[in-house]
Amino acid sequence: MIIKILGASAGGGFPQWNCNCKNCANVRAGKPGFTARTQSSLAISADGKAWVLLNTSPDLRQQINDNPELGARAEDGHRNTPIKAAILTNGDVDHVVGLVNLREAQPLKVYGSSRVLDTLADNSIFNVLNLDNVERRELTMDTPTEIEGVDGSTGITIEAFDVPGKVALYLEKKDAGPSFGTQKGDTIGLKISSSAGKTFFYVPGCAEIDPPLAARIKGAALIFFDGTLYTNEEMLKQGLMPKTGERMGHMSMSGPDGSIAAFSDLDVARRVYVHINNSNPVLDENSEARKAVEAAGWDVGYDGMEINL
Amino acid sequence: MIIKILGASAGGGFPQWNCNCKNCANVRAGKPGFTARTQSSLAISADGKAWVLLNTSPDLRQQINDNPELGARAEDGHRNTPIKAAILTNGDVDHVVGLVNLREAQPLKVYGSSRVLDTLADNSIFNVLNLDNVERRELTMDTPTEIEGVDGSTGITIEAFDVPGKVALYLEKKDAGPSFGTQKGDTIGLKISSSAGKTFFYVPGCAEIDPPLAARIKGAALIFFDGTLYTNEEMLKQGLMPKTGERMGHMSMSGPDGSIAAFSDLDVARRVYVHINNSNPVLDENSEARKAVEAAGWDVGYDGMEINL
Repeated sequence: MIIKILGASAGGGFPQWNCNCKNCANVRAGKPGFTARTQSSLAISADGKAWVLLNTSPDLRQQINDNPELGARAEDGHRNTPIKAAILTNGDVDHVVGLVNLREAQPLKVYGSSRVLDTLADNSIFNVLNLDNVERRELTMDTPTEIEGVDGSTGITIEAFDVPGKVALYLEKKDAGPSFGTQKGDTIGLKISSSAGKTFFYVPGCAEIDPPLAARIKGAALIFFDGTLYTNEEMLKQGLMPKTGERMGHMSMSGPDGSIAAFSDLDVARRVYVHINNSNPVLDENSEARKAVEAAGWDVGYDGMEINL
Repeated sequence: MIIKILGASAGGGFPQWNCNCKNCANVRAGKPGFTARTQSSLAISADGKAWVLLNTSPDLRQQINDNPELGARAEDGHRNTPIKAAILTNGDVDHVVGLVNLREAQPLKVYGSSRVLDTLADNSIFNVLNLDNVERRELTMDTPTEIEGVDGSTGITIEAFDVPGKVALYLEKKDAGPSFGTQKGDTIGLKISSSAGKTFFYVPGCAEIDPPLAARIKGAALIFFDGTLYTNEEMLKQGLMPKTGERMGHMSMSGPDGSIAAFSDLDVARRVYVHINNSNPVLDENSEARKAVEAAGWDVGYDGMEINL
C-alpha cells in the first residue's frame, strides 16, 4: 500500500493567508528551516493505480497538480482520473471543501459518517458533483467497509470509528453549551487495510485518546495523528486567536495530556503528525519543540511524504 | 488603479484535474506554448495597499501565495490582510468557493447580488466566515456602490448590472425549461471606477451582448470579458462534455454570434479574455485560433497579467 501525504497542514495551510506569526512570516520570507505545507489530506493506493483520498482539502487542485500520479492519464481517454473515492473524517472546511474540485461529471464515490453526509446534503454547492455520477455512501462505524471505486474494489478496506472531537466550526450551535452541539459521527478516525493485509490508522482530528481509542490503536504499525498544536494555549500566547486546542477539539502534542505522552505505552511502531497548525513550533525545523517531538519517535509530516506498507 | 489577473481560467482550471484533452495533456507534459492557469479571479487596488477581489476562486490560497502583495504584511501585526473586500459576479463554484479561504475571523466585506448572497446564506459552509466580522452587502443593480474596506473606502466604486447568463450549475432547476430557473442577478457584470477617475469593465460570464450591454460598454478603455469557448460546440466535438457554450451560458469568441464580432464596432480600447476553458484552442499559443484572436486586437489573459489604468 502506498500512502502519500498531499497536505500536512491544518486549516488555513502554512503559510496562512492572513497570518504573520513567526512561523508564517518566516516561511513566507523563504527562511531556511521552514517548509510550506498545504491543507490536510492523504492519498492511498493498494495497487499504485486506483487512488483513494482521505479528506479533500481546499488545496486539492494544487495537490493533484503537484502529484502527477493523481492527474488524468495520457493513455486513458479524454476524461479520466485515477481518483476513485474520497473518505471524509469530519465536516471541517479543510477536509470537505476540496470535493468541489472533483466536479466535471466524473464518476466517484464519497464516503463519510451520516453527520458529514448530512452536511454535504445541506450545502447545495456540493451538488456540483452530480449525484447521478457521484454516489455518497455512509460509513457504518466499527464495521469494515470495502471501498469501491467506479470499476470495482480499490483493494482498500476502511473501518471508521468515533473519536472525541468537535463539530465543524461553521456548524457550532452557540446555545448548546461546551459541546457546541457535537454529536457522534462529527469526528471519526479510520483504520485502513489493504488487500495485501497491511493496516494503518488515520486520526487527523482528536480531542483525547480515551481508553477505547487507546485499545484500538495499541500495537499498530503506523498512525497519522492530529498534530494541530504543540501546547494547548499556543494560539492565545502568540496573540493569534482567543482559542485553546481544547476549545477547537484538538489535543496537543506536549504535556501530560498530550499525544506524545498518551502514545508512550501504545507500541505504535511509526507515528506521523499531520494537520499541523501554522502556530505549532515544530514547523520550525530548528526548534526545541521539533527536537523533542523527533526525540520521542514522531515524524513531523510534510507534503509529498510517502510511506509504503 | 492596478488590475491583476489572479486566475484566467474557467472552472476546473488549466489543466483540469480529470481532463486529457489536447490542451490539458500538453500543459501537463510541460510542452512549450502551453501555460497553466488557475481559476477565474481578478484583484484590483486603487492605492496599491488595499485590494479588492473580483470573484474568489477555489485556487485563491495558491493565488495569494503566488502574489505576495496579497499576503499578510510583515509590519502589520499578528493577523492582517491587504484584502479588504470581495465582489462576486455569480454563484458558480469557480467564483464563490474561494471565500472559504478567507476565514480565520478576519474582517472583510463581501458584495454580491441578492441571488448570490441568498446562495451563500443557503450554504452553511460559508458561515466559516464569521458573520460578526464579515459583512455581506447586496449590490443594487445599475447604482454606483463605493466599496468599503474594513477601515474606510477602498477608493473603488462599482456599478453592477445584469447580463444575459445562466444560474450556477448546482442550482439549476431541471423542470424549469431552457432557462434552468435563471433569474435576474444570477450573472452580473461590473463597471469599476477608481477615485482617480479611471474606469474598466469586468464581465467574466456572458451569454450574449444584447443592446443594453453594448450601449453600456461602448467606448470603454478596457474590458475583461468571457473567453470560455472559441466555438459553441468545441466541448462536444472534442468528446469532453455534451454541452454547448449556449447551454452553459457562455457566448463564444468566434463566429457571427461571437464576442469578436460583437465588439467590432464597440470601440473598446483594450479587450482581454478571461475565464478561458481548457478546451479553448487559444490556450495553444501557436494555434490559428490564438492568432485570429490576437489579430482581432484581443489579449488572451494569463495569471499574473497586470494592467495599470
